[in-house]
Parts: sequence; C-alpha cells; structure tokens
Amino acid sequence: MEPIASAQNPRIKAWKKLQRKRERDRSGLFLVEGEHLVEEALKSNINVKEIIVVEDRELPKEWAVTEVEVVRVTERVFQELAETETPQGMIAVCEKPPPENMLFESGRYLFLDRIQDPGNLGNLVRTAEAAGLQGVVFGSGCADPYNGKVVRSTQGALFYMPVQQMDLSEALEHCRANRVPVFGTSLNGSTYSAIAPQESFALLMGNEGSGVDPSLLEQTDHNLYIPVHGRSDSLNVSVAAGILIYHLRGD
Amino acid sequence: MEPIASAQNPRIKAWKKLQRKRERDRSGLFLVEGEHLVEEALKSNINVKEIIVVEDRELPKEWAVTEVEVVRVTERVFQELAETETPQGMIAVCEKPPPENMLFESGRYLFLDRIQDPGNLGNLVRTAEAAGLQGVVFGSGCADPYNGKVVRSTQGALFYMPVQQMDLSEALEHCRANRVPVFGTSLNGSTYSAIAPQESFALLMGNEGSGVDPSLLEQTDHNLYIPVHGRSDSLNVSVAAGILIYHLRGD
Repeated sequence: MEPIASAQNPRIKAWKKLQRKRERDRSGLFLVEGEHLVEEALKSNINVKEIIVVEDRELPKEWAVTEVEVVRVTERVFQELAETETPQGMIAVCEKPPPENMLFESGRYLFLDRIQDPGNLGNLVRTAEAAGLQGVVFGSGCADPYNGKVVRSTQGALFYMPVQQMDLSEALEHCRANRVPVFGTSLNGSTYSAIAPQESFALLMGNEGSGVDPSLLEQTDHNLYIPVHGRSDSLNVSVAAGILIYHLRGD
Repeated sequence: MEPIASAQNPRIKAWKKLQRKRERDRSGLFLVEGEHLVEEALKSNINVKEIIVVEDRELPKEWAVTEVEVVRVTERVFQELAETETPQGMIAVCEKPPPENMLFESGRYLFLDRIQDPGNLGNLVRTAEAAGLQGVVFGSGCADPYNGKVVRSTQGALFYMPVQQMDLSEALEHCRANRVPVFGTSLNGSTYSAIAPQESFALLMGNEGSGVDPSLLEQTDHNLYIPVHGRSDSLNVSVAAGILIYHLRGD
C-alpha cells in the first residue's frame, strides 16, 4: 500500500492532535516515539493500537505484532507527527491504561506536587520503577504523565509503573488512615540519613522552584532534608528523589 | 545609546559563534543565559566581560556591575543569540576559568566517561557541587562543560565547581599513586550499600547507553551496582550518581 503522503489525511490529523493534553484526555490515547520505546510498549501490558513507520521501514522480525496495524507514511508526514529532533522513524499510538485506584494500605509510593519539567517527571517515574515502588501519584499542577517528553524520559518505565492523578491532600489522608508514614521534603526538614529504612512509605517531592506546598508539609509525618555542602542550595528534584527513595527502602 | 539592531554587527556575530565549542575553545569565552544564572556568575569568581540585554531592560539595582559593559540589543538580535525558547532578556559573555590542575592527592571527585547529554552533565556538576566534591573530570567523549545547556543545567554550580577535561586513564593513575580509591559503576559490580563511606574517593560514571568503558573498569578499585527492583535495567546517570555520591560521602 502507498504510504500516506498528506498531512491533511484525517488519521494523521487525529494523531497529531495527541501531542496536546486535552486530546489525550478526551481520546484516552497517547503517542510513543522511537523504536526502543515502541518495543517496550509492545512487551508491556499497554495496548498498542497502531504503529506508524516511515515509507518502507520494516519492523524488527522478532516483534510479534500481527494484531497491530502498521501504517506507512512519507518522511514529510512523519516529521509532522514526530516531537523529537532526530525521530527514529517509528511512533506507536497507544491506549492509556485504565485509571488506577491506589488505596495506600501499605507499600512504597512517590507523590509529586506541581512538578513541571517533563524530563524531571519522566526521570522520577523511571527511578520509582527501578526502585520497585508500588505507585506514583501526580498531584494537580504536574505536567501530564502521557506528555511525549515525559513518556520518553521514563525510558519505558511508565508502561510498568502504576501512575495516578489525584489530589495530594486526599492521598495523604489515605496514608494517615493506613499508618503509612509520609515523608515530605523541606529545607527546614531533618537530615534524611537519621531516618531508618521503612517497609511502607510515601515520599513527597515538590515543584522545582518552590518545593512542596507548605500546607502539604503540615500533613506529613516527617520532613526530610538532604544536606548540601557547596554553594548550591538544592539538588535537582529527580536526583534528590533518587537519594531519598534508595535510602528509605534500605538499599 | 541606540540598541544594536543588526545581527550582522561584528560583535553580535562574534558572540553568536560562542554557541559552538570550537569558538569557545579558541576564545576562552562562553555564554550564560538568563537573569538568575547571570547573577550567579557575577557573584562567583567568574570574570563577566559583557552583559547583553534587550532594549531598555534595566539590570537589578543591587547588582554592582560598574566594571561590566552592558550592551543593548533589539529583541530580534537578542533572539539570534539566545539558545532557549523563552530567554529572559539577558545573556552574559564570560571568561572560562584558567585550566585546573587537579592532582588527586586526596578528596572526593566525580569522573565522567563519554557522557553526552548536556542536561545530564549539568545535573552531575550540580550534584557534585552540592555534595561538596573537590572536582569533576570530563573525560574525552563528554560534551563540553561550557555548552549552553550544560551551563544552564548546572544552575550556576559550574561557576563554583572545579572542572577539568582530562584523559581518564591518567586521572585513574594519579588516584592509584595517591591511594585514593576509585569506584566504577557496572551491572557486574557489587551492591553499593556494602561499601562504607570514604574520606577520599573518585566515582566513575559512564555513557548513558553503554556505561563505563570496560578498559577503565579494569583500572578501578571496586565496581558498584545499584540494585533495581523493577523491569528497568538502569537509572538515569545523574540520579545514579546522586545515590552513590551521597552514600560514599556518608550523609
């Protein structure tokens, strides 16, 4: 079949709209760009609906994708859909997983308050997944977990990690009811290394500029601080989360 | 004075060339973009030569910049020089500090092998500075520390952190001669938490895709591994470095 050659093709227009949060919310679909990430999506439980490839690009033989439609497009049309500067000629249209309903009865969680940078958010999900946490909660004011840059920065961890968008006060209430200790992060907190590793916990990380909302910090069990020894007053939020998560889980 | 309105103005052309590594190497100059970062550069020992501002933009009153030339340019010319999508109307032209000559007699160091992503490199320098390390070594194959994106990602830590470009084999030899233990990172390493905190150390982090060069891993004292408990096979290099640096320094 001839590749789709027009950016005005209705399917191309519909997919391009998935670069916007509103359209992802409406349709329940999102885009995954790059061969490695598409492969990760196929291996996971994520439902891959279509794979868009450039011209005569072949899918790797070992991919069992008989149930996925492969759509061929011209290089120019592909550039319309791609968000990266050096796209690798492959994009998947995927269904968002059904909403999670985390109860926080036990386990280890990462709570994110108004974190804006998609690269940071992706990195946070990647770290949470690698550390074996049970879930990540995106509070209001965070960028969308299905934003293309977030998806790419997770390096595929998003396909395995339960992610929930939820009011953080409510999540904190659940934790309190279940005696899951909540650790905020604050320049006025106590040094993190004095806290022993925990079977269950929720770690609350905040906005890159302003940190965790003070009203949320009042609802935590402890607020932690990572000592800085240089002129800097802080660490990158995903680096700080990595240090705290690995300390709290105890390896 | 009228703002410079032509992108063909010789000074504008010379500054624009500083976006390229070759010209930064040749001239010993680099660009710092954004008001916060320019302020950090002014506070540090970095020699700020010129501050380029849009039209009638005023510098904050509290900046003591009587010895720095302020150059006004039109919005359009400014856009030529800016590398970010939302530049904040201010760029400083700065002198690179004189080359370091680290001897690795004692202290704590971060060694970087072929790390490519400017955001990661900036984050690594930021973490090293916050953790109070004595220096960061950029091995061959790393992006330039004075690349604009690296500078911005350090959040100003670059202005305080001694950074040296150097052959890593040679740096490892210095460490060995001085009995400064070197810790590589490898999927075949031992779990990092079994290693006690160290007065002096060099931590060696490697390329985002392929890790540390195997021939360098043979020259280390120990190779460390951060356990992953999910489906991911690795952490982001700057997150991993944060976990290891804070563990090795002991707080």
